[in-house]
Amino acid sequence: MPIDLRSDTITQPTSGMREAIATAEVGDDVLGDDPTVKQLERYVAGLLGKDAAVFMPSGTMTNQIALRAHTEPGDEVILESQAHIYYYEGGGPAALSGVMCRLIQGDRGIFTAADLAQVLRPSDVHFPKTKLVCLENTHNRGGGSIYPLSEIEAIAQVCQQNGLKLHLDGARLWNACIATNTSEADYVEAFDSVSVCFSKGLGAPVGSALAGSNEFIERARRFRKMFGGGMRQAGMMAAGAIYAIKHHRPYLKEDHLNAQTLAKGLQSIRGITIDLKTVQTNIVLFQTLALPAPILAERLKLKGVYVLAVGPNTIRAVTNLMVTDTQIQQVPDLVELALNEN
Amino acid sequence: MPIDLRSDTITQPTSGMREAIATAEVGDDVLGDDPTVKQLERYVAGLLGKDAAVFMPSGTMTNQIALRAHTEPGDEVILESQAHIYYYEGGGPAALSGVMCRLIQGDRGIFTAADLAQVLRPSDVHFPKTKLVCLENTHNRGGGSIYPLSEIEAIAQVCQQNGLKLHLDGARLWNACIATNTSEADYVEAFDSVSVCFSKGLGAPVGSALAGSNEFIERARRFRKMFGGGMRQAGMMAAGAIYAIKHHRPYLKEDHLNAQTLAKGLQSIRGITIDLKTVQTNIVLFQTLALPAPILAERLKLKGVYVLAVGPNTIRAVTNLMVTDTQIQQVPDLVELALNEN
Amino acid sequence: MPIDLRSDTITQPTSGMREAIATAEVGDDVLGDDPTVKQLERYVAGLLGKDAAVFMPSGTMTNQIALRAHTEPGDEVILESQAHIYYYEGGGPAALSGVMCRLIQGDRGIFTAADLAQVLRPSDVHFPKTKLVCLENTHNRGGGSIYPLSEIEAIAQVCQQNGLKLHLDGARLWNACIATNTSEADYVEAFDSVSVCFSKGLGAPVGSALAGSNEFIERARRFRKMFGGGMRQAGMMAAGAIYAIKHHRPYLKEDHLNAQTLAKGLQSIRGITIDLKTVQTNIVLFQTLALPAPILAERLKLKGVYVLAVGPNTIRAVTNLMVTDTQIQQVPDLVELALNEN
Amino acid sequence: MPIDLRSDTITQPTSGMREAIATAEVGDDVLGDDPTVKQLERYVAGLLGKDAAVFMPSGTMTNQIALRAHTEPGDEVILESQAHIYYYEGGGPAALSGVMCRLIQGDRGIFTAADLAQVLRPSDVHFPKTKLVCLENTHNRGGGSIYPLSEIEAIAQVCQQNGLKLHLDGARLWNACIATNTSEADYVEAFDSVSVCFSKGLGAPVGSALAGSNEFIERARRFRKMFGGGMRQAGMMAAGAIYAIKHHRPYLKEDHLNAQTLAKGLQSIRGITIDLKTVQTNIVLFQTLALPAPILAERLKLKGVYVLAVGPNTIRAVTNLMVTDTQIQQVPDLVELALNEN
Repeated sequence: MPIDLRSDTITQPTSGMREAIATAEVGDDVLGDDPTVKQLERYVAGLLGKDAAVFMPSGTMTNQIALRAHTEPGDEVILESQAHIYYYEGGGPAALSGVMCRLIQGDRGIFTAADLAQVLRPSDVHFPKTKLVCLENTHNRGGGSIYPLSEIEAIAQVCQQNGLKLHLDGARLWNACIATNTSEADYVEAFDSVSVCFSKGLGAPVGSALAGSNEFIERARRFRKMFGGGMRQAGMMAAGAIYAIKHHRPYLKEDHLNAQTLAKGLQSIRGITIDLKTVQTNIVLFQTLALPAPILAERLKLKGVYVLAVGPNTIRAVTNLMVTDTQIQQVPDLVELALNEN
Repeated sequence: MPIDLRSDTITQPTSGMREAIATAEVGDDVLGDDPTVKQLERYVAGLLGKDAAVFMPSGTMTNQIALRAHTEPGDEVILESQAHIYYYEGGGPAALSGVMCRLIQGDRGIFTAADLAQVLRPSDVHFPKTKLVCLENTHNRGGGSIYPLSEIEAIAQVCQQNGLKLHLDGARLWNACIATNTSEADYVEAFDSVSVCFSKGLGAPVGSALAGSNEFIERARRFRKMFGGGMRQAGMMAAGAIYAIKHHRPYLKEDHLNAQTLAKGLQSIRGITIDLKTVQTNIVLFQTLALPAPILAERLKLKGVYVLAVGPNTIRAVTNLMVTDTQIQQVPDLVELALNEN
Repeated sequence: MPIDLRSDTITQPTSGMREAIATAEVGDDVLGDDPTVKQLERYVAGLLGKDAAVFMPSGTMTNQIALRAHTEPGDEVILESQAHIYYYEGGGPAALSGVMCRLIQGDRGIFTAADLAQVLRPSDVHFPKTKLVCLENTHNRGGGSIYPLSEIEAIAQVCQQNGLKLHLDGARLWNACIATNTSEADYVEAFDSVSVCFSKGLGAPVGSALAGSNEFIERARRFRKMFGGGMRQAGMMAAGAIYAIKHHRPYLKEDHLNAQTLAKGLQSIRGITIDLKTVQTNIVLFQTLALPAPILAERLKLKGVYVLAVGPNTIRAVTNLMVTDTQIQQVPDLVELALNEN
Repeated sequence: MPIDLRSDTITQPTSGMREAIATAEVGDDVLGDDPTVKQLERYVAGLLGKDAAVFMPSGTMTNQIALRAHTEPGDEVILESQAHIYYYEGGGPAALSGVMCRLIQGDRGIFTAADLAQVLRPSDVHFPKTKLVCLENTHNRGGGSIYPLSEIEAIAQVCQQNGLKLHLDGARLWNACIATNTSEADYVEAFDSVSVCFSKGLGAPVGSALAGSNEFIERARRFRKMFGGGMRQAGMMAAGAIYAIKHHRPYLKEDHLNAQTLAKGLQSIRGITIDLKTVQTNIVLFQTLALPAPILAERLKLKGVYVLAVGPNTIRAVTNLMVTDTQIQQVPDLVELALNEN
């Protein structure tokens, strides 16, 4: 069995989850008849403290539809320079919503209210109209970094003063909540819309949800249909998502412990640089200065450890439901072995 | 148990299908690791005689991505005036691909090569540039009407002469093939791209596929990611689709027989008008001249028969996997009863 | 000197107009400093009885920006099937605004309130959201046909009842007003926005204007900048437009008389079919049944008469400021000669 | 008479230019009949050493149509972080072309081939597809900075190696050429497309041109029509542009001398910071550290000197055809007076 640390998206459904999926009560969700989808949507809206939620096939769709529903073409959206929405979603902001991205360079994905205030421009026909600010918590390319709640509140205040909406890409909000012992509802209170994902650390096979006001979610449903996210007996997937929230969510704590274990183990290896302060949830970024990251990743693969090279000298390892603490303890030695091959 | 004839999209997964879904071998399809998705894609490409196919969450997405991949904004797409792509896909052609729809009024959804030739315009900066022609087989709003293969070939010739691509919305291609005893590959040979759906008459919970050349499908995969159609352990749904093609497809023949039975039964009812020639597959359109269609639909619902009013005096009933021939035989009497209430 | 009847867009500036252009007081209009542009905008707003107007380089831009300002991508705009906005503007509605065009087949470009009511659909995620109705007065491809004011009022009522905006493509509104002895303000009172053109029958070299509420025009100014319609010392062109409204507008009456003269002269020619009722302003459409229109147009060109073949058997001749009544009287004989050549 | 240094766009037509405009030979350019437009297009294509050129109403339109013609929605365009195309064109890249902007922070607007190589990403469905690199010469927000020809050549090589197109926003290319004594054709040889503007330092009232290969310009003409840039008797404006190139272009040298004079005068003022090395053409950027820039600009306005505050402590002054050397010599004293008011 390989130790697959490429991403927390690789998690396979557990047998309990497969059972839940197989026995889900379903209907035609496009006609509004799927009881399990409706149950999930109410459940998530409740968890997030929002009026309503809508189920979608992917996190990319929930984010892109949030942009679409908050803006019109020619508007400006403000994001951190390595935000998933900007970096990894195939050019969707421009192609699907016609919006310009204005980027703020954060510290491992986290920018401040002061940073935001500085990039705002006055209303002028030369400039796109700023409409939306997006945060990401935890921040993927920032290494699973956690957005401090107090900073979110300060940013939300700048938004309100300037008539801007605030969206959270909360694909890994679950991790931030577990790590800070904060409820999801408390963490997202200041946001106009929130997307969460069930198929990352939670381990459901498919699905994300977008939450917000009733009016916003009604608008999002229109765009979901247009984008091709309206599915028929989607309750089978929703059943997996419900199971994931109820039964897998507590295990995120173990993913975080495993990430700490891994980071500490890596710290003592000559040729590896890692800052323990940056390991806040289930993502471990480390530098391999002696050996190019792609080569180290390739060597590790042959030893049954799968990681991703995300920069010329940077490796990403993501702990997840498929990887046990026993397996994690083996990884540092394997890294050391791989480094010392020739 | 109601007799649900609203659509063939309402079909619930059978127990065999649920078993196939529960035990599917899966992986992270965004990383290219899902064996069941790959199996389905190869299977469908083979059935349709195309290089490659790509799995997506809905028929709307397969159609809209076909448009996106064949065109650029400002191009013109030629469609029948009631084509699903134009009529029911939420404005996707303009919003997602920026294309103008030029419509041809067909006969129950079927237009001819001569009709097509007549709407073509010369190249001129005043006109959008015509790039794509779309057909629909069977044609949903045309009442499940079948596109004659010879007409398709004539249309394809006009397309070739004018440098136009040809796409098939084949959501119900399966029905056309069963009804005419033609293989899928033969029926779609003239098309550059084809979309097929697994969650209509075939009864899978979720999913459609788009097929075409290798280059076209590679392009479609990019847009699938952008539109939010990239799903992780999608093999569970793909397993349902494979099961549907293998085990449910033969039952479409029974749906067609049931549609005939229903149509004949309705023909003798005073107040109902139906032309038997128009009932070619699993869709039955009939006129209720004495009573408005929405009222008749409402009355039938109370009697356990679900149908859709698709016009002021037009009712649509779609036979499907969930409805037996015994149930179908009861419908005409219930319609007569409903008509004669007051 | 040729008799150029291809369009009323071919009119050359008169010497008085050239003088007005050469001596215009100008400034940087992008910075809001051009007094002549401002004068024109106020003048046009006043003539049309609207809050404000904005000057643009073309009629296509005024129409396309009206669509852009009234809608968002995925909305539906209702137009007559041969409307200039749909037919001749290069696919702008889809490419620039992302809107679907829903077409009504009118009678020479004129549809009724009842026609409109019939195509409206209920709110549903399957359908684009209808937002805007566009009329064209006079209607170019309808042969310069005049929209009856009473029909406009009935259409406006349907719009109000359904929350739809109403835009007028009034490129040739001037002609409709002269022909019906109605003021511009009275004719457009029911519209939310109106575009008018100075470089058709009025004979200015360049320019159109879009008028509407203050809020609408402010929005339009943003899109004008984005589309590239913000010009610097545009007052030179605005001076031509002001001159055109003041000094050339009365001559439209002569264009209309010339059109009548031409139509009557053509009526008696064997091989030419023309219905005098259809000649309402400065556009004359006639059928050439014996000889294909492109060939007749080619032969007339050699005789110094320029017209356009706008269909296989249809010729369009447009009277304009450059053509005198004496010249017009010669045209029927030249047509007869051309027909009888071999 | 005020000393207007806000921009070189404020230049008024000279009397010779007014005469050229008034007497221009014109035709309907949409029908291809305007001899003066054609003359200008050939003239500019020749100057730039490209196959063809097309006249448009603004520099924004030439740039945005270049983007549109080189890309499709979902593509990525690489620009300097303060490029006019990104910063000042109203969100056009996303709204009109659906492209993502990837920004490189340059040194006063100038980035290097190495900078470019570093931001290129591999082909992957998660990323937009990189298609185009845009440079700006001289760079407006960079303070009229000149792009070194050798750096352009190195960048062009990176583009060729990676299959990327290269566009120049050459609104002020004329200034770069005069300042470096390089011909326009030599300076733009490495570019696939070039836009130039006639209504900045050259002083024409209206107009820009886009140049490139025949195929590219044919494509651009389609988009010009769609965007609303097709104008009728546009030869009047083209006549102004021809006059500007022939008769005003040599005066750019005086603008540059005036900028030097101004910069040197400002250097000795206490409270003003200016780096003479940054004054390369006709734009002078200076810092006012004691007094906020908007207040200094306001005070100068009352003294008849118009400048723009382009940052909290940054003032921009642009020398131009309307400002004499005598006037320029007065400016430093007026700045000193304004600073010392209270």
